Amino acid sequence: MNCLNGCRNIYIDNAATTKMSKSAINAMLPYLDGIYGNPSSLHSEGQKAAEALVGARERIAKCLGCTSRDLTFTSGGSEADNQAIVSAARIGEKKGKKHIVSTAFEHHAVLHTLERLKKEGFEITLLDVHENGLVTPEQVAEAIRPDTCLVTVMYANNEIGTIQPIAEIGAICRERGVLFHTDAVQAVGHLKINVTEQNIDMLSLSAHKFHGPKGIGVLYARKGIPLTNLIEGGAQERGKRAGTENIPAIMGMATALEEACENIDKNTKKLTALRDRLISGLSEIPHSILNGDAKKRLPGNVNFCFEGIEGESLLLLLDDKGICASSGSACTSGSLDPSHVLLAIGRVHDIAHGSLRLSLSEENTEEEIEYTIGAVKEVVEYLRSISPIWRDLSSGKKKFIIK
Amino acid sequence: MNCLNGCRNIYIDNAATTKMSKSAINAMLPYLDGIYGNPSSLHSEGQKAAEALVGARERIAKCLGCTSRDLTFTSGGSEADNQAIVSAARIGEKKGKKHIVSTAFEHHAVLHTLERLKKEGFEITLLDVHENGLVTPEQVAEAIRPDTCLVTVMYANNEIGTIQPIAEIGAICRERGVLFHTDAVQAVGHLKINVTEQNIDMLSLSAHKFHGPKGIGVLYARKGIPLTNLIEGGAQERGKRAGTENIPAIMGMATALEEACENIDKNTKKLTALRDRLISGLSEIPHSILNGDAKKRLPGNVNFCFEGIEGESLLLLLDDKGICASSGSACTSGSLDPSHVLLAIGRVHDIAHGSLRLSLSEENTEEEIEYTIGAVKEVVEYLRSISPIWRDLSSGKKKFIIK
Repeated sequence: MNCLNGCRNIYIDNAATTKMSKSAINAMLPYLDGIYGNPSSLHSEGQKAAEALVGARERIAKCLGCTSRDLTFTSGGSEADNQAIVSAARIGEKKGKKHIVSTAFEHHAVLHTLERLKKEGFEITLLDVHENGLVTPEQVAEAIRPDTCLVTVMYANNEIGTIQPIAEIGAICRERGVLFHTDAVQAVGHLKINVTEQNIDMLSLSAHKFHGPKGIGVLYARKGIPLTNLIEGGAQERGKRAGTENIPAIMGMATALEEACENIDKNTKKLTALRDRLISGLSEIPHSILNGDAKKRLPGNVNFCFEGIEGESLLLLLDDKGICASSGSACTSGSLDPSHVLLAIGRVHDIAHGSLRLSLSEENTEEEIEYTIGAVKEVVEYLRSISPIWRDLSSGKKKFIIK
Repeated sequence: MNCLNGCRNIYIDNAATTKMSKSAINAMLPYLDGIYGNPSSLHSEGQKAAEALVGARERIAKCLGCTSRDLTFTSGGSEADNQAIVSAARIGEKKGKKHIVSTAFEHHAVLHTLERLKKEGFEITLLDVHENGLVTPEQVAEAIRPDTCLVTVMYANNEIGTIQPIAEIGAICRERGVLFHTDAVQAVGHLKINVTEQNIDMLSLSAHKFHGPKGIGVLYARKGIPLTNLIEGGAQERGKRAGTENIPAIMGMATALEEACENIDKNTKKLTALRDRLISGLSEIPHSILNGDAKKRLPGNVNFCFEGIEGESLLLLLDDKGICASSGSACTSGSLDPSHVLLAIGRVHDIAHGSLRLSLSEENTEEEIEYTIGAVKEVVEYLRSISPIWRDLSSGKKKFIIK
């Protein structure tokens, strides 16, 4: 950052990753230093680590509304997604059921796993997503077939933040005897979740999306669902995920999750106000459009398309103004393809390229939001002033897509 | 620990896991706190993380004698082992080569992955291990067939510490056009390794075995070896391992590895002296036997069998005396089966149950070693005094196996 604007540092890319909370860091530190035993070891150093592991698992289970034996620690959300889907596929194929229902705008951890299963002979139905960024329980009900082994629908989208009707989808799956998995990486810690009440069979989460550490996640799988190992080896995690447990990260995750869940009402209120102010401010930009439903979205998520500009240029100029934002998923930021999420909700290529995702945390302030609105307006105006496409649009040579 | 012995805390289970070095912790801290961006993000917070990632990869590559593009970060040694073997199998089966050579005393991360491939139709040859804990290059040469796609032999055994003739095995594999992988989880940071000079095509390592953090490892794969993803999703790690990179752990690992490699001569000298004193001290116990070659073993590894006792009781009583030790692999400590490693070197069941692994770090002192020798002697004597088997042995009713 070159400090053109008084060395501001406004981080509004919390869907990519979050700053760890102080209490989560403090929860990790003793296990990075003094308490370093391997929880599989019989001696007292090992047993201290094993006790910590038991405690953390129980604390996390409490936050999710399940029992601790249903949780498997993974290296993050992607691994949890992969393991959930592969496990359901293996259960399905034993019964001759090789059809999976999902949506067109899942994270690549889900979509690429499904593509691999497709090569193995599975049939995949990807539900269309409505323009408001939602799928309906009715769509799921229609797509389920006698040979469906899994429905996997993300809880909240990582780009446009829309929240799916998870409990209703879960109820349909339960009624039809089909396993239901949800990629809740963007939702856990931000929305009230209870896997039991919401009829969720499997759920993936990632700690670094709720102010916990990177490199750790959880796969929840309801009792009786046999998991398939992605990583074979030692007998850790009841034989379902080999490798010495990452105790420091697990301790940090448990603390971060508890903290997020305790503060969820307070944070939701604050974030929703900031989000709605951002949406109303950015809506003043001509030929702009909010992506995803205005209300059924994560309290911290804002995603806009601006006609006639390139998302990447927008990001770089905002960065010069001390604003860390994103055009969509960080995981695919190297790619030149437009977002599959924006295409799924019906944005055409040209428009999808001009996207901006602002994902807030409770640390963001009203002042930062006002500054950001001003900065985005300024940068969009500047980029349009030098854009040949914009010239064509404003002279009437080309027609506006966003009215 | 109940402080029967002046609250001693002697940790000699460094093959299970190590205490992080202060400098490795210090290398992690800034990335747990201030520098928390996602390295895939285009903005400056992300780019700071991306630069750190590039730097860490180069530092690790230098320690291993390869180029940084050949390294893939994983969640640990088990994941790296799994990915290496599965990748080689996929390469092999495309060419109709479905035979793999390994050894009977590999870590379960290797053995269980091979068992899974066996179910898929691969043929697995597990080489016998000599009584001294070594396999020979000649055994490997004899086992390689025209349809062999992979040889995987561990660098140093995790229980008995014996060091295999890796460069020679690598040379044979290279000559025969067969991929060579080594599980070097116990070796990296403890032995001088250069993957290029030692003809290693793929190598797995885990940071927490050399005073780095848990939850992070590396798979080295020589340029041109296509890896198969275990975890699908985002485009991280050149598309070969999805999931937001665990930057704090990667930074800690790079620092721990550099430190270990810089101090390798000094540490080897110190550890070898402590190890040899331990071996000579424990050899005085009647009807005891050192497992594995006395010299071709890790500088910090000691592994004994004592006739007429149970390993678990030995560990618990040593723990009471403030000594954290192990009977073998921590990963399987819950199991009642005797160690497959000890069975592989020809120990019978009864003897294999009475094993003790002491794995030193450079922090252990001569005084600790003397105390440990005394404590082991005392505990073995006590356990024998209450053992019906020992009574039968000493009365001549049963014959001693260990002379």
